Amino acid sequence: MSKLSIQYIKIASVFILGAVIYFSPVPQGLDPRAWHLFAIFISTIFAVIINALPILVASISALTIAIFTKTLVPIDAYSGFSQGFILLILIAFLVAKGVVKSGLGTRFAYLMIKTFGKSTLGLSYSIMITDCLIAPAFPSNTARSGVLFPIVQSLAIDSGSTTDSEESKKKMGSFLMMCAMASLTISSGLWLTAMAANPSGVAMAKELGVNITFGSWLLYASVPSLTAFILIPLILYKTFPPTVKNTPQAPVAAAKKLKEMGPLSKDEWVMGITFFMLVLGWGFSGILHIDKTAIAFCGLAVLMISKVFTLEDLKHEGSALGTFIWFAILYTLSTYLNRYGFMSYIGEHIRHSLIGLSWPVIYVSLITIYVLIHYLFVSQTAQMLALFGVFLGVGINAGVPGILMAMMLLFATNFNAMVTPQGSSANVLFAGSGYLSTGDIYKQGAIVTLSNLLIYLVVGSFWILLVS
Amino acid sequence: MSKLSIQYIKIASVFILGAVIYFSPVPQGLDPRAWHLFAIFISTIFAVIINALPILVASISALTIAIFTKTLVPIDAYSGFSQGFILLILIAFLVAKGVVKSGLGTRFAYLMIKTFGKSTLGLSYSIMITDCLIAPAFPSNTARSGVLFPIVQSLAIDSGSTTDSEESKKKMGSFLMMCAMASLTISSGLWLTAMAANPSGVAMAKELGVNITFGSWLLYASVPSLTAFILIPLILYKTFPPTVKNTPQAPVAAAKKLKEMGPLSKDEWVMGITFFMLVLGWGFSGILHIDKTAIAFCGLAVLMISKVFTLEDLKHEGSALGTFIWFAILYTLSTYLNRYGFMSYIGEHIRHSLIGLSWPVIYVSLITIYVLIHYLFVSQTAQMLALFGVFLGVGINAGVPGILMAMMLLFATNFNAMVTPQGSSANVLFAGSGYLSTGDIYKQGAIVTLSNLLIYLVVGSFWILLVS
Repeated sequence: MSKLSIQYIKIASVFILGAVIYFSPVPQGLDPRAWHLFAIFISTIFAVIINALPILVASISALTIAIFTKTLVPIDAYSGFSQGFILLILIAFLVAKGVVKSGLGTRFAYLMIKTFGKSTLGLSYSIMITDCLIAPAFPSNTARSGVLFPIVQSLAIDSGSTTDSEESKKKMGSFLMMCAMASLTISSGLWLTAMAANPSGVAMAKELGVNITFGSWLLYASVPSLTAFILIPLILYKTFPPTVKNTPQAPVAAAKKLKEMGPLSKDEWVMGITFFMLVLGWGFSGILHIDKTAIAFCGLAVLMISKVFTLEDLKHEGSALGTFIWFAILYTLSTYLNRYGFMSYIGEHIRHSLIGLSWPVIYVSLITIYVLIHYLFVSQTAQMLALFGVFLGVGINAGVPGILMAMMLLFATNFNAMVTPQGSSANVLFAGSGYLSTGDIYKQGAIVTLSNLLIYLVVGSFWILLVS
Repeated sequence: MSKLSIQYIKIASVFILGAVIYFSPVPQGLDPRAWHLFAIFISTIFAVIINALPILVASISALTIAIFTKTLVPIDAYSGFSQGFILLILIAFLVAKGVVKSGLGTRFAYLMIKTFGKSTLGLSYSIMITDCLIAPAFPSNTARSGVLFPIVQSLAIDSGSTTDSEESKKKMGSFLMMCAMASLTISSGLWLTAMAANPSGVAMAKELGVNITFGSWLLYASVPSLTAFILIPLILYKTFPPTVKNTPQAPVAAAKKLKEMGPLSKDEWVMGITFFMLVLGWGFSGILHIDKTAIAFCGLAVLMISKVFTLEDLKHEGSALGTFIWFAILYTLSTYLNRYGFMSYIGEHIRHSLIGLSWPVIYVSLITIYVLIHYLFVSQTAQMLALFGVFLGVGINAGVPGILMAMMLLFATNFNAMVTPQGSSANVLFAGSGYLSTGDIYKQGAIVTLSNLLIYLVVGSFWILLVS
């Protein structure tokens, strides 16, 4: 059979799946719109997983169908496009180009290669260390991804791994991008202040009698997070290996290149100061009550006024537009799946089906289901707001120690991010980098998430029970 | 003085203008936010007019300042990005690329050249005829611009006028783009159903005792519109001449090229059917209650599934992203200028200052002010909703014949579109085409608008008084 006809069969199977669910009887007690939207959403995800359609095309089709079937009214359907954090990703994409183009990314990459560059694995750890160290000051993992992404991109490019060919990507760029994405799942769970949803979770836990502080969070997180920190790059190194592994000459070459670069150019100065201000601004935006997206727009304005990033550069950034469109659409579909009551309906069902089981079984089941259900979510915070309370309540009522149940759900809120490209806004820059196919992300994301699940369930559970 | 330092002086002067207005005492009775937003908005327009900053950079800077000064809260400031008609422009941009890329645009262009192509002026009239003929079925001039744009773009490209150099643009592409934009100002005023705001205006006029029907509208519009239709291309031909004027061999060459093209390719078929469905869908969207933007998304999905427009093509469409960003921002700023009460405040002042003058003076003043004030508006509909009632009321009370005042304000709502690139969503595709600088649009737009103003005031007023 020709490649083309396989493609059309795949597309047809997506439409059949969608139609079968759509026209099945609506489960009792569920809003019909919720059921129809579920049919559209799940077939979109299916289309992407089986590679029937690229994520952008699948998303646009889903949006169209949702509007034509009156599952969503247009004004709701387009609401994702004006979400601040989605615009933040779009602008961070363009700022990242400025980092690379100005030469500052290259310089920073050479510095990192000079220090950690004997091996690709060494570089991956250096990315993770950077991430974990800046994380407590970054309550937005989206913004933090905006800081890490240009560094990883420059590291890849300056190690000779570009997006020009499959072979070149695989040298080390793909591996480093995947590690950075995995890193964010760990760094966000390490500190109470490393992700926007964490403090909300702590507040919700308090209402159910579970007290968590900045210090106790760090204590509970320390051992499982450290374990994940050490193991995850090693696992990806096996399952998604870079073709260039050892680069014993790289540090010397990088040092030489650094010398050749000479002092900072004007563009690098502008970029450096802008980037530093962005990091500061994003870090302190919570305290200073400044909108993070406006900070990003401001940074872009500075780069464009000073011509570090030009209109000519923008012309080639059509893929940023593509990423913006699919992420806004998937976010909206998932948001309305929740608003229409689909998520709480599922939560209620899970509660019923677990009655009468022993607490360790209930505990493991709840955490596993909580992680798997993230396939339906396009925002970690949305899942937490929708399901954290239900799951925590069910667990505590069944006899699971409150602190164990709460912390593990909070960790899961962070480490479940990688199940899909759209699983977290922090993934999106990496998913759009050109180094990773959506297939790669689904596969390696599943492996990383499963590994994290095991690490946190085994190491984390024992550690929390030991110190609590 | 160097070019660079002149640029920085220009930018500084923009900031000084903005700051002076911003920190001036707020006029009595005006919301301080309205005054501050006015300061930001007017300096943005000023920055673009004096060429201190490109329209995108000026817009991003304005957005940032509006948020940082708390003139706009972030959620309001980003609201333009999810406006359906703004997304429609974005998607129409991408669909237009499909028309060009598939080869269908080329074929259509050759057909037009074969028939009208002996002179560039002939081509400009053929664009206008097409526009005026399809206009009554297109209550959205935005959607109509989405139909005209790819045709004009193909006409330009296939006549050898590309955006590669200034010289090549000027051959005929720039002229034809400008004519198409001017055409929309005329076609929209010719029919009651040719622009979304027209029927609302008719309804509002009725409340003040002025009755307008589809037929009477056409009668009143016929003579001034025909005059404008004939004169405007001739005027642009003088003020903004194409460098290639006579192309006596073009029809023969086009006929030959058409023969060489042979029968329609698969891509052309897909594109042709999609485009035809888009035209039908947009035309009947009002009757069928289908969202125009969803129709556009659907068309794009079809083009992407059938690979007429690919992800690879999208990569080079960064300028569509730029256009989307600036238009969404300027639209939002203008919308809130109105919501904060700035426009009604101005309307009230105008009313006061005209008391006691004779009706012809009041009539001409009101129409002229109504046109000039469009420099502050980014939506024709918004201006009509904000000011049509006030202006019409003032005119009628001062003794201006109701039908004259109403029709002329409605014509002005349409022909004032070209004062700025953002003056109408129908301009935006042409403004982003690469053939026109914002400077060109400000200058030629002023000439076209002034010409239209004179034509409609002189020819239109006498005609309406004659037949009413």
